[in-house]
Amino acid sequence: MKRSNLFLPTLKENPTEAKITSHRLMLRSGMVRQSSSGIYSWLPMGLKVLKNIEKIIRLEQDLIAQELLMPTIQDSEIWKKSGRFNDYGKEMLTFIDRHEHQLLYGPTNEELITDIFSKNIMSYKSLPLCLYHIQWKFRDEIRPRFGVMRGREFLMKDAYSFDISKEDAIKCYNRMFLSYLRIFNKMELKAIPVSADTGPIGGDLSHEFIILADTGESEVYLDKNILKEEIPNINYNDSKGISKLVDTLTSFYAAADDKYDEEEYMNIVNENNRLKTKGIEVGHLFYFGSKYSIPLEAKVNSKEGKVVPVEMGSYGIGVSRLVGAIIDAHHDDKGICWPESVSPFLIGIVNLRQNDIECSNLSDTIYNNLLSKDVSVLYDDRDEGAGIKLAEMDLIGVPWQIRIGPRGIKNGNFELLQRKTGDITEIKVKDMEKTINKLL
Amino acid sequence: MKRSNLFLPTLKENPTEAKITSHRLMLRSGMVRQSSSGIYSWLPMGLKVLKNIEKIIRLEQDLIAQELLMPTIQDSEIWKKSGRFNDYGKEMLTFIDRHEHQLLYGPTNEELITDIFSKNIMSYKSLPLCLYHIQWKFRDEIRPRFGVMRGREFLMKDAYSFDISKEDAIKCYNRMFLSYLRIFNKMELKAIPVSADTGPIGGDLSHEFIILADTGESEVYLDKNILKEEIPNINYNDSKGISKLVDTLTSFYAAADDKYDEEEYMNIVNENNRLKTKGIEVGHLFYFGSKYSIPLEAKVNSKEGKVVPVEMGSYGIGVSRLVGAIIDAHHDDKGICWPESVSPFLIGIVNLRQNDIECSNLSDTIYNNLLSKDVSVLYDDRDEGAGIKLAEMDLIGVPWQIRIGPRGIKNGNFELLQRKTGDITEIKVKDMEKTINKLL
Repeated sequence: MKRSNLFLPTLKENPTEAKITSHRLMLRSGMVRQSSSGIYSWLPMGLKVLKNIEKIIRLEQDLIAQELLMPTIQDSEIWKKSGRFNDYGKEMLTFIDRHEHQLLYGPTNEELITDIFSKNIMSYKSLPLCLYHIQWKFRDEIRPRFGVMRGREFLMKDAYSFDISKEDAIKCYNRMFLSYLRIFNKMELKAIPVSADTGPIGGDLSHEFIILADTGESEVYLDKNILKEEIPNINYNDSKGISKLVDTLTSFYAAADDKYDEEEYMNIVNENNRLKTKGIEVGHLFYFGSKYSIPLEAKVNSKEGKVVPVEMGSYGIGVSRLVGAIIDAHHDDKGICWPESVSPFLIGIVNLRQNDIECSNLSDTIYNNLLSKDVSVLYDDRDEGAGIKLAEMDLIGVPWQIRIGPRGIKNGNFELLQRKTGDITEIKVKDMEKTINKLL
Repeated sequence: MKRSNLFLPTLKENPTEAKITSHRLMLRSGMVRQSSSGIYSWLPMGLKVLKNIEKIIRLEQDLIAQELLMPTIQDSEIWKKSGRFNDYGKEMLTFIDRHEHQLLYGPTNEELITDIFSKNIMSYKSLPLCLYHIQWKFRDEIRPRFGVMRGREFLMKDAYSFDISKEDAIKCYNRMFLSYLRIFNKMELKAIPVSADTGPIGGDLSHEFIILADTGESEVYLDKNILKEEIPNINYNDSKGISKLVDTLTSFYAAADDKYDEEEYMNIVNENNRLKTKGIEVGHLFYFGSKYSIPLEAKVNSKEGKVVPVEMGSYGIGVSRLVGAIIDAHHDDKGICWPESVSPFLIGIVNLRQNDIECSNLSDTIYNNLLSKDVSVLYDDRDEGAGIKLAEMDLIGVPWQIRIGPRGIKNGNFELLQRKTGDITEIKVKDMEKTINKLL
């Protein structure tokens, strides 16, 4: 993409309404614009990141679940059946349609998926079943803030599992646990599983996945050793191996403020290993048995010929929130430093002297070479000063910058900068091909 | 995908609520389920088709426009500014949030995109600009019907163009015209452009794209010769060539009931060339000049240093409706006959004798071979009778069926059936590789 054609309204000044880094950088780098309190439009560059995150999630979730897509608007009837219509409170946006029928904008989908299950699945033979979707949700936050971190309309991946027994349900829970570790790892995020309250979803087993970041809204108390744990290479069929991994990870002390117990923490965790920090919740696992399957009649015929309610769990990831969380974890004072896996572009080309024919020719050549290789590339071809172009490329955080200027060209060179480290390498023009291939 | 693992609740009987073919077949083939009047959940197979359609649209639209994503919920203020808040009527779903602020579920996005433009673009140098998104919309239809053809929550691709002059705006309009022809063509749909009323969008130039199908809600009056026109291979930069194509296609008489004039039709179209039929609207182009840019202050500095409102157009495609339209255009009495470009699976494998070890081995071998080639394949491995399996594979409309049975195997053969034509070819097992490669 040529910068001169891209709709990328960057800002030079920090917007006053943005209190945290990710919000500030998302506005400044032209990724999003607010249209109403807590409701955002995703401009082209923001949308690219959102889609890259979705792609990572789908690749992992498709290994253990099937994707479907439920609507944003739900019927209030099923919420009355489950008993949550009144319980959910003012965060739920409800309204009546032209025929005076009460609807709501789904804040989560336990009721609807259970209703779909109950009408279409009759036998234990169809189990285990795990379904997920990636869909916009609405929660009418009393005080929307921090940009996409606590917006009202937000994108969520939510999966739902159906099993014949608690034992099978826990196996699915554990597979999700592993899947989440892998998903966040691919985004270069260190996600800490902490045991959690179940809140309005309910149930008796729950873990949150928390990214450590100074801008987080939760206080987190950790045993530092959990940060050293690597994710082993386990197959999703290996229930035993996964169970062992979950046991290991949950054996370290890790709690958010709602579950924190000072005495326990002091007793269990050696003083040198204590870490109190802030975190951002990006994922949540729930096992809640038959809380929804009984009232919504999600029952199957068992092997023994009995009709039994299924055992369920639900598993969420805050997709739009992750965009902010990744920025909060990956930035410096110049701007964003995208991990390659989610970056809107892999390579940026900065032509430092737009009116120099040699600079333009070499820039064009490299750009066309990258396009022919199907590399995602942003080419700043604007007639602007080098300082403006470099500052913007730093701000928007493209992982690799190719800088082409008259001084380098005189020596047959261009510069390659790695955004994360700031390391600059002089590259011979004749080694261009080799250098580019190494980045792919 | 193995059929035994796929959540595909097919129905043997025709659901009584379905009055038209596409609705009936979408329910029977387990693609969708209604959750509330005119609101559907897309089950895994339906979602695959929806995504394939989105992909075709993106590939073509990305050549002339940039994708962004606006939210589903909009602020009523901008609609009050444009004057449409009261005009739009009861089809617009409005509601108030917990802070008594009035919001609405977007039925279309002219206001919001114009607002985004006005706040971020200041100069003619940023023009031409064309932006699109693919997002769920809500229109509170008084009588939702025909499944996804006239639902309330529906997926739409809507693009918006911004130009400095009417001349440039018409060039963009024409590029969209060509893009739409190509998009529908790739889905194996014959789309007829007809001049149209502008309705609540407004403006003075508009075309609908209509698919001919008996289940359509619009009457269409045609000069048959338009059906013979091919789409030439024109570059999007070739404004003259595109303009000529648009002139040619719009020179044939083609009108839906709202624009039909009997006397004109009889005068212009020779009796032998008259065709009165029914159609489904799947796309709509509008040019409306400064209708929104004036009230919403989408103005730029012109080359001459004046501040001028931009010239706009909007361009919609009914993405979820297309799923139904394609089925209405591609089916027979056994079920759906998907065009390959949108089919949920390219190849289906039917093991006709599940308990025969030779049949199972060959089926497994072919399945694994296809998976290794990254071919989308559905393998019916269930322990069901051959009749049930074949009927279901016909119903769900996979373009190619590989049928493996004991009789064929005895002769070293399997059968390859083309769903659309019903043609069956006997294939030697040793020619499997070659045969499969030909389908890819």
